[in-house]
Amino acid sequence: MLRNRVIDTAGRMVPIFQRQALRSLSGVKQSKLTTVEVDDKSGIATLSMNLPPVNTLTMELMHHMIDSINEIECNKSRGLILTSSNDKVFSAGLDLKELLNPERKRLEEFWTLFQDLWLALHLCGIPTAAAVNGHAPAAGCVLATACEYRTMLPNLFIGIHATRFSFVISKWMMLSYQSVVPRRVVERALNQGKLFRTQEALDIGLVDELACNKQEALDKCAAFIATFDKANPVARTLTKRMCREPDVRDLLNDRAGDLRDCVDYVLTPLFQEGLCSHLEGLKNKK
Amino acid sequence: MLRNRVIDTAGRMVPIFQRQALRSLSGVKQSKLTTVEVDDKSGIATLSMNLPPVNTLTMELMHHMIDSINEIECNKSRGLILTSSNDKVFSAGLDLKELLNPERKRLEEFWTLFQDLWLALHLCGIPTAAAVNGHAPAAGCVLATACEYRTMLPNLFIGIHATRFSFVISKWMMLSYQSVVPRRVVERALNQGKLFRTQEALDIGLVDELACNKQEALDKCAAFIATFDKANPVARTLTKRMCREPDVRDLLNDRAGDLRDCVDYVLTPLFQEGLCSHLEGLKNKK
Amino acid sequence: MLRNRVIDTAGRMVPIFQRQALRSLSGVKQSKLTTVEVDDKSGIATLSMNLPPVNTLTMELMHHMIDSINEIECNKSRGLILTSSNDKVFSAGLDLKELLNPERKRLEEFWTLFQDLWLALHLCGIPTAAAVNGHAPAAGCVLATACEYRTMLPNLFIGIHATRFSFVISKWMMLSYQSVVPRRVVERALNQGKLFRTQEALDIGLVDELACNKQEALDKCAAFIATFDKANPVARTLTKRMCREPDVRDLLNDRAGDLRDCVDYVLTPLFQEGLCSHLEGLKNKK
Repeated sequence: MLRNRVIDTAGRMVPIFQRQALRSLSGVKQSKLTTVEVDDKSGIATLSMNLPPVNTLTMELMHHMIDSINEIECNKSRGLILTSSNDKVFSAGLDLKELLNPERKRLEEFWTLFQDLWLALHLCGIPTAAAVNGHAPAAGCVLATACEYRTMLPNLFIGIHATRFSFVISKWMMLSYQSVVPRRVVERALNQGKLFRTQEALDIGLVDELACNKQEALDKCAAFIATFDKANPVARTLTKRMCREPDVRDLLNDRAGDLRDCVDYVLTPLFQEGLCSHLEGLKNKK
Repeated sequence: MLRNRVIDTAGRMVPIFQRQALRSLSGVKQSKLTTVEVDDKSGIATLSMNLPPVNTLTMELMHHMIDSINEIECNKSRGLILTSSNDKVFSAGLDLKELLNPERKRLEEFWTLFQDLWLALHLCGIPTAAAVNGHAPAAGCVLATACEYRTMLPNLFIGIHATRFSFVISKWMMLSYQSVVPRRVVERALNQGKLFRTQEALDIGLVDELACNKQEALDKCAAFIATFDKANPVARTLTKRMCREPDVRDLLNDRAGDLRDCVDYVLTPLFQEGLCSHLEGLKNKK
Repeated sequence: MLRNRVIDTAGRMVPIFQRQALRSLSGVKQSKLTTVEVDDKSGIATLSMNLPPVNTLTMELMHHMIDSINEIECNKSRGLILTSSNDKVFSAGLDLKELLNPERKRLEEFWTLFQDLWLALHLCGIPTAAAVNGHAPAAGCVLATACEYRTMLPNLFIGIHATRFSFVISKWMMLSYQSVVPRRVVERALNQGKLFRTQEALDIGLVDELACNKQEALDKCAAFIATFDKANPVARTLTKRMCREPDVRDLLNDRAGDLRDCVDYVLTPLFQEGLCSHLEGLKNKK
């Protein structure tokens, strides 16, 4: 079923969610919120999130990321490395302000965009790797687990701590987590809202390798992408999507259902109160 | 779908299977077959199985356990620790006498009760932990794996050895086992009817931690329950149930089907002969 | 559902796919392409693939293997050990010549036979073990993972490197791989087309034990088969099939769909070109 989506009549790979006309990539390309750099030698594209102070996934940043992912995929890059231009935070996760007393219509738009972003990255036709060079809580971790490989700098946090701010994640986020970390560990971590330190993340397999600094992280991602050199690219893409299809089947079959579940829950007083007191807590910490 | 079941209109958690009116808990509460002790400081309830000589899961014990679980869940305890008042045996498993030449109607009642007990424990809204202070074969192991954490005393056995007495477990028991232990290990253990020693159980992850004695086991369970302190309780419950829903989906969708499969199989001459010779073997051992 | 298939009215086990009348086994039985030896003491049957030079799975070899598996299963052997009479290659996998510019009808027959072979081995009623005494790439690895246990000699390769010759495996092969090796490792290995050395295969659990030579490999398989001695054989078979049913459900429900998917893909120019250049590469290596 997914097979049909990947090759167009001219035999080129086609992204799952294409949002705009293709643009040519030339060396470094800068939008306001993301940077794409293509290494001429390796053919690998590095996509940096670039929204100060902490790469919060606002609607605008997500738009830019989806465009950048599609662009990289269509321009036959050899692989995609996701990283942050901020060495403290990879991404702080979703823009929680969008979840606080939201207007239903805007919330629907916000969540649909997050679904789009995740699908674009999770099913991306080319090899993907995350150079986690800063903290990666919540949706920051979700983005990292959507990639095929993760390397991480020391003394950082990664994990899905949604229950700490009363949020209940969607099934596809759980399945993505379980595709990387054993089921038993995932259930407990999700229930606790656990954030793992770099070394713990390595121990449970949430992260594949440590790196001393950002350059080493990028190099390890590039070395990972090179492990696919002997594979036929289209067969690789089809195989990747077959492996990942069970995780997204429910979402693809019923995106409206996932949207409704999420929006309905976010609008409950229970969640709103929980989020409120979480945000108060963060304020008091500062 | 499971979300609707967990919160009533007043925002309180509601147990999945509520069998009776609520009763107040005050300090120690003693029924004939189970004891519930609530620690005033920690708010954690300890549920002890208390049917000499070996906590065989008779219909009466299962009734008492379901009531106790529901009671603890409704009274907003901070967590539930399952243990045995017998330091040799946690639970010897189902009452095999109920499976020997049974009357169909009674067998149906018996199996339905075991389904109820498992669902009540597996989907319990509050954190659950098992202090395995004695042997836990067959359904004793199933109860332990329904909890979120297990600690175990040395030199004991735990495992599902159903094939040794010709029994074929239900799919939900297999899935529960697989939620804790890797698939490859589960298949082999189930086929062999393997009982694991404490240390082996720790090595494969069937048990999370060892404890030198019962008090240490209870303390470790309490420490585990405390790891959820930063999580919003309702979000935690919803997240737990999302993680566990795939294991029980078939059972909840078709409880009658699981019942029929089990009853039909128990009534075959093949099973009856196998059970008979197993019981003979146990007698001769004594 | 699978339960009905396993026991006939006389209480005997019945193979899933029976292709011919039963023949009696007596000591050693030699067909052109497989050898079956039954150990009189242990009651274990050893099935050797015997098609020089590299046990390529031709239609003829697959026919012989299915017959031998059914024969062993019906004659109440205590277990089945799969091995090769060639100490360099366990099996080199499917006959790729059948995939090169194939006639559709013949290709359908070929793939159906491979489905039959896999189902016969994967759901075989008696304990199965693979003594991997030579390289096991591609379908050679698939055969090994269909068994319940694998032991392997040093300095060999095992793995599914299909993407290297542009092939996209079926979902049931992926699920079989995942039943042995963690999901994260499987996805990456399939995408890379990775062949594991013996020691790596042991590290990830693809192989259970090492053996210094073929005799030790056979002895370890026999010891594995003996671990089921305390289990009721029919309950064991039913339990094994319950564990494995999720892997084959889609295939059993829609064998024609899997056939169509495979045949359609093999007939694309993309695959044909990829296979061609792979075969060229192999020729140039020699």
